[in-house]
Amino acid sequence: MAYYERHIFFCINDRGPDSERPSCNMCGSAEIRDYAKKKIKELGMSGQGKVRVNQAGCLDRCEEGPICVVYPEGTWYTYVDETDVDEIIDSHLVNGKAVERLKI
Amino acid sequence: MAYYERHIFFCINDRGPDSERPSCNMCGSAEIRDYAKKKIKELGMSGQGKVRVNQAGCLDRCEEGPICVVYPEGTWYTYVDETDVDEIIDSHLVNGKAVERLKI
Repeated sequence: MAYYERHIFFCINDRGPDSERPSCNMCGSAEIRDYAKKKIKELGMSGQGKVRVNQAGCLDRCEEGPICVVYPEGTWYTYVDETDVDEIIDSHLVNGKAVERLKI
Repeated sequence: MAYYERHIFFCINDRGPDSERPSCNMCGSAEIRDYAKKKIKELGMSGQGKVRVNQAGCLDRCEEGPICVVYPEGTWYTYVDETDVDEIIDSHLVNGKAVERLKI
């Protein structure tokens, strides 16, 4: 059995405003990660056998960002705001149904 | 097709030496992550369709650390040194065969 049923990683890499390449935290991905972590806890979905929310370094899909990836499915998403992340949480992380409109 | 054939995350959380709980970077996990990243590049195994090495925040298996997890398999490992990481790279990341002796 998987240690976590679903494991989501948010890229929070930040190259700074002067970089030629974009980076996810320029869109506030660290705050979004905090938001997702808090919401999963509030839903009682946090922990072994359930869901884990983590930050990660650069996932190297910078031009498609901000991004996150859900394992074990290996589903990659982009998102704009908390509403998008709510949908990833409610649909995918809690109910196992990928969010087609946010897939990259 | 998966964006990365295999995606390994090394916990590099560091609670500092005064914490009652252990944390992976007390064992130098950030350096090990750098080592793994460099080795995967040298092997020509880095990039889309191949392998990605990332750092992550606390994966919440602190007492079993230092740890890393390989997706999509969801295989969790502990390691002591570069020799262990070499085995995870050569056996699992490159050849798809899990390293039983390092599994947690």
